[in-house]
Amino acid sequence: MLVSDLGEFGLIDCITRLIDKKSIKRAGPWQDLLVPAGDDAAAWKSRNGIELITTDILVEDIHFDFSYTSWQDLGWKSIAINISDIYAMGGRPQYALVSLALPGAHLVSDVLAMYEGIIKICNKYGIVLAGGNISASEKVVVNVTLTGMAGKDIMTRSAARPGDLIAVFGHPGLSTAGWKALIGHKKIDEADMKIMRRAHVHPAPGLDSGPRLAACGVRAAIDTSDGLLSDLEHMCEASRTGAVIYAQNLPVHRLLKKYFKQEFLEIALTGGEDYQLLFTAGPETMDAITKTMKPAPTVIGEIISGQPGKITVMDAKGNTFAFNCKGWDHYQRASCHE
Amino acid sequence: MLVSDLGEFGLIDCITRLIDKKSIKRAGPWQDLLVPAGDDAAAWKSRNGIELITTDILVEDIHFDFSYTSWQDLGWKSIAINISDIYAMGGRPQYALVSLALPGAHLVSDVLAMYEGIIKICNKYGIVLAGGNISASEKVVVNVTLTGMAGKDIMTRSAARPGDLIAVFGHPGLSTAGWKALIGHKKIDEADMKIMRRAHVHPAPGLDSGPRLAACGVRAAIDTSDGLLSDLEHMCEASRTGAVIYAQNLPVHRLLKKYFKQEFLEIALTGGEDYQLLFTAGPETMDAITKTMKPAPTVIGEIISGQPGKITVMDAKGNTFAFNCKGWDHYQRASCHE
Repeated sequence: MLVSDLGEFGLIDCITRLIDKKSIKRAGPWQDLLVPAGDDAAAWKSRNGIELITTDILVEDIHFDFSYTSWQDLGWKSIAINISDIYAMGGRPQYALVSLALPGAHLVSDVLAMYEGIIKICNKYGIVLAGGNISASEKVVVNVTLTGMAGKDIMTRSAARPGDLIAVFGHPGLSTAGWKALIGHKKIDEADMKIMRRAHVHPAPGLDSGPRLAACGVRAAIDTSDGLLSDLEHMCEASRTGAVIYAQNLPVHRLLKKYFKQEFLEIALTGGEDYQLLFTAGPETMDAITKTMKPAPTVIGEIISGQPGKITVMDAKGNTFAFNCKGWDHYQRASCHE
Repeated sequence: MLVSDLGEFGLIDCITRLIDKKSIKRAGPWQDLLVPAGDDAAAWKSRNGIELITTDILVEDIHFDFSYTSWQDLGWKSIAINISDIYAMGGRPQYALVSLALPGAHLVSDVLAMYEGIIKICNKYGIVLAGGNISASEKVVVNVTLTGMAGKDIMTRSAARPGDLIAVFGHPGLSTAGWKALIGHKKIDEADMKIMRRAHVHPAPGLDSGPRLAACGVRAAIDTSDGLLSDLEHMCEASRTGAVIYAQNLPVHRLLKKYFKQEFLEIALTGGEDYQLLFTAGPETMDAITKTMKPAPTVIGEIISGQPGKITVMDAKGNTFAFNCKGWDHYQRASCHE
């Protein structure tokens, strides 16, 4: 069987089972992982608190294209996509390592511009750029590893419970709308293009959103990287729950409605790379959060018991929607946003 | 200026200066790095001890070729090249993250074989495979991040002092000899090929060599990844010292002499990817180490004062050698081993 037949998430399942079966457990006293492989970040307890670590990669012509991505934006985004993973676990990011592979024919000034983007986002989010690695390759590859630290409780994707409300930060799908605008032929006003472009090439997870949610008592979260439905499905599968999304409650950005009249709902539900937080909490906790956090998250649905991973999207009249795809899978994307 | 004009190490210098200039220092209480970017691993103090983290990448057709590398060996090597960095700082490896990018046309069974290689080396060296990431790409890219923990003292590349003896584990250049044998047209006996191939595709840093050296009081070490002279030069530059290598003392493997009659000394001095430790220590400490450690390291020279980074290689009669290159630079390798 080919990787493309199995898909990204099927492959991850296979690898996780192999690790469970063949890894020697507890070779040292430090080795109790708090979450199984597959959550947003690895987590373990130490005398410092709960340590977190995550890694994510950007590959030229797969994740980005220099025709619309500046080197500075590339640097920014390479860190941003990891910050949302640390936030999704309720942690604060601490140290970043940057592994860069690129052909020798690139300009040194471009590489330094990339590091300026990296340093800028590290300074904004309180991250220390601790080291990394440089090597040759045919395409530009940026792999970032980010450590983080959480208090005594982390958020996981397996902690959603029936009765929880579901909320999301930002405007789901705006990054994908930006990508479609950048690669497409739609006529888009300059000021609008700037907003949509920025959502795609310069994502900015809400500052401290993860630790603040954790401090408010939230226990279930995931970042919106694969698409709202896909990420919610991952959460519901891990939590053994179902979910209902109320379409009319989705915080769809006005530009999504303006330029994607037919497809805005599908893009909001399935467009990936927003790198904001999706989380669940009981009604009282959710009420306190929506009243105090600025910018506030938007409540979009609720967790229900039922078939694990099954998500129903309803309109105001109670009719349900059907979609061809739920979001981003690296090996099955042809069916979706392309 | 192009990256290829500046070279890997020139680029790293530029980036390090940019980080020093633009990063906000001490944004949090945890942010005191113990070594500047450029050492084998990043290091900082915590309540646990000294925390270490390193990252390294393998890119298809740059670092490896599937014509002579099995998927299992690829997995093994992706971790091995990071273990030697943690050992070079005197630490024990703890958690590994694997970021894999590959085309969907590969077999799932091949990917799982790679993870078997990863799990095998993790089990041998007491490492927990904690997580990772999978995405699409045109070539296979494996980026591993490895954390480690050291006691109260680490080894660094800046701690070599005039009067220290220089020693190395293993047989420098054997990995490069293996690579030359794998890609070349020399007639090589099957049993010999097996040994040389293994040195290249299945490197095995001496188990616990790093923490054991640190416990013996060694303070200066580096791993042999770029080539003996190049790595020693990095150490001497960081330590502001010179060095003398006695060619007749080099532990040149018999197969290097057998198959590379003209070039064995150059390969031993400049061939990279051995992933063993090169270290320095005062004569008494060195004497204790060579008498007690099994396998024992070989003393090959000494640290002297003088021009920082200048290394002299002498034969038994006191004559000096000149070389065209010192070892591996990702962007200047054409002048060297190709």
